[in-house]
Amino acid sequence: MSVITLTTDFGSLYPASMKGVILSINPDATIVDISHSVPPADIMAGAFALYSVVRYFPQGTIHVGVIDPGVGSDRKAIIVKAGGQWFVGPDNGLLIPPARLLGEIEVYEIIEEGLSGHISSTFHGRDIFAPAAAYLSTGRDVLEIARKTDGYVYMDFSGYNIEKEFIEATVVYVDDFGNIITNIPGEKILDEIKVGTVLSISGRQMPLLNTYSGVSKWELVALVGSHGFFEIAVNQGSASRLLQLGNGGSMRIGIMSRS
Amino acid sequence: MSVITLTTDFGSLYPASMKGVILSINPDATIVDISHSVPPADIMAGAFALYSVVRYFPQGTIHVGVIDPGVGSDRKAIIVKAGGQWFVGPDNGLLIPPARLLGEIEVYEIIEEGLSGHISSTFHGRDIFAPAAAYLSTGRDVLEIARKTDGYVYMDFSGYNIEKEFIEATVVYVDDFGNIITNIPGEKILDEIKVGTVLSISGRQMPLLNTYSGVSKWELVALVGSHGFFEIAVNQGSASRLLQLGNGGSMRIGIMSRS
Amino acid sequence: MSVITLTTDFGSLYPASMKGVILSINPDATIVDISHSVPPADIMAGAFALYSVVRYFPQGTIHVGVIDPGVGSDRKAIIVKAGGQWFVGPDNGLLIPPARLLGEIEVYEIIEEGLSGHISSTFHGRDIFAPAAAYLSTGRDVLEIARKTDGYVYMDFSGYNIEKEFIEATVVYVDDFGNIITNIPGEKILDEIKVGTVLSISGRQMPLLNTYSGVSKWELVALVGSHGFFEIAVNQGSASRLLQLGNGGSMRIGIMSRS
Repeated sequence: MSVITLTTDFGSLYPASMKGVILSINPDATIVDISHSVPPADIMAGAFALYSVVRYFPQGTIHVGVIDPGVGSDRKAIIVKAGGQWFVGPDNGLLIPPARLLGEIEVYEIIEEGLSGHISSTFHGRDIFAPAAAYLSTGRDVLEIARKTDGYVYMDFSGYNIEKEFIEATVVYVDDFGNIITNIPGEKILDEIKVGTVLSISGRQMPLLNTYSGVSKWELVALVGSHGFFEIAVNQGSASRLLQLGNGGSMRIGIMSRS
Repeated sequence: MSVITLTTDFGSLYPASMKGVILSINPDATIVDISHSVPPADIMAGAFALYSVVRYFPQGTIHVGVIDPGVGSDRKAIIVKAGGQWFVGPDNGLLIPPARLLGEIEVYEIIEEGLSGHISSTFHGRDIFAPAAAYLSTGRDVLEIARKTDGYVYMDFSGYNIEKEFIEATVVYVDDFGNIITNIPGEKILDEIKVGTVLSISGRQMPLLNTYSGVSKWELVALVGSHGFFEIAVNQGSASRLLQLGNGGSMRIGIMSRS
Repeated sequence: MSVITLTTDFGSLYPASMKGVILSINPDATIVDISHSVPPADIMAGAFALYSVVRYFPQGTIHVGVIDPGVGSDRKAIIVKAGGQWFVGPDNGLLIPPARLLGEIEVYEIIEEGLSGHISSTFHGRDIFAPAAAYLSTGRDVLEIARKTDGYVYMDFSGYNIEKEFIEATVVYVDDFGNIITNIPGEKILDEIKVGTVLSISGRQMPLLNTYSGVSKWELVALVGSHGFFEIAVNQGSASRLLQLGNGGSMRIGIMSRS
């Protein structure tokens, strides 16, 4: 029994043909949707979606990620192996943060010709990545469909800054609740700032706490979310709407008191 | 083969890590999503979502429900057994109406320490409820992970009123069509009011019929829905938008003629 | 192992009881969601959703389609066999284009009485179509639950017009990106008009190209999509919003230069 996960910006219809392709090659595959509502072409948000879940999947899981604004260009198609799990998708950085979370990575370039008769110019998720994942899930050797490479597009969630009186960060993901997830790993925040500290953003104050319910309904709160990153939320509301901050946005957070 | 269902207010990303946890413990589990778009923190709507589907699932199904505004507080985590099916989730009333629909209930309090190394303060769906369900699905005895209890939070869909000239009810769920589902069981309405009766709401008239298509497109209609509850709908339109009524809302319906 | 797919306009809650019914009859079924967000009562959009995916599913797949504005009326319930796959749903044209794509079709009328104890007047997806599909998936003969018929409601995607200086077409589907998919098969366009030709719609120009990325971000582009139909898109934007064109809409496209 092999688990294959799908993470795309395809919305509600196109993932189904990927599933048909997978089940045609491996009828015993267990397919799990991570998300198909990653904001269109937002590679960092897609990387975060995968990053937030991979450590909970079993050894041997194959993750297909398709946030692929370069489809139809000459960007490579890759397979990444790390920590006993596999990642399949475009060579644009998407797969690197979740793979590196699991350990040392090995990168392979897919040799397209080995996979499928027909390859459309707009839907490599169905024509290249899904069949590659399905072949891997049947136990075929990765070297039958790909060759090892050292050249790949790198990406990480770095680029934040924790100073004495302020924090600078980037929004990597806004979840369906409107919680704003930043690129700062939780442990980096908690090393520097104690729970109870009062922070500020856009002229509003918020405490750094452990749970959403530590503030009243509709109040801002900062915390380390279950995904392990520093996050700004509104208890039972949307921080993204309140602060007018979306994916990719930059923020500056004041540190008002260090408790 | 064990069926595990998921009902949450988590939106599109967080359910996937629950699925990874389940498949890591029981690779043979069949996971079915009931809904992940229950309105945030709306325990009654979540209870209705589960209530409307449980009778169609096979013996042995394990339903995980996570509408959990009290996560991080000291509310208990429970397992409920009823009619050969299982329910796993927070002790806030959510699981009680669907379980009672199936028969007599037995309630168990989960002993958290038996389940998982790491328990976050914000995501018990992944860290407590999903592993508990997965363990049950492998055939482990419920008493290995929980102890029987008589103390639990009760909830039901009561609190309606059918009089000679009017009906008072509460909205338990607005579905994706905008159909307004009330807390009045269908048989209670049909015992009192005959099909063909003209009702009124907010100054508008509507007949009590058997199907949506008994009125013209865009017209209001009252009926007993496929879920078994009294419902107000607009044929091919949204009653919720027309009447400005959402989850938890109260309504007073006039009985204009008893045909 | 049998694959059963679901295509409906039911939104997020009602499909789950269909899945419960299927798993109660055949615990080994692999259930795949095609889409549950087909625009309500839009039979042509539902037919397109199925049409776009069926060729990627394995032999023996059973597709349940429920876009069913006539539920509760006396429209028939049918099973269609084509190219080694099965289709189950209402007799309103929905199943015909995807079935005909696979080859010659055989149509059967479901004999309702053979299927289920209770049949609601509003939810045949759960009470008739899901059990019929599940019975087929267990290997039961179609003639146990249905009888062959020659009378059925026909539908196709015809009704377009490619002239020397203009094209007339109908919108069959707007996908989640806002891409406008027309009823013109890709090969009909490419037989008549070369890649590179400049087209116009609503006073705006757009080239006929092979990929979305052949134009700048936010620019209009015409192409044959991965589904095989002529499509109008905005690179990383919504053509439907820009052109104010939705499902079922008519369009007239000018041919400005034939390159």
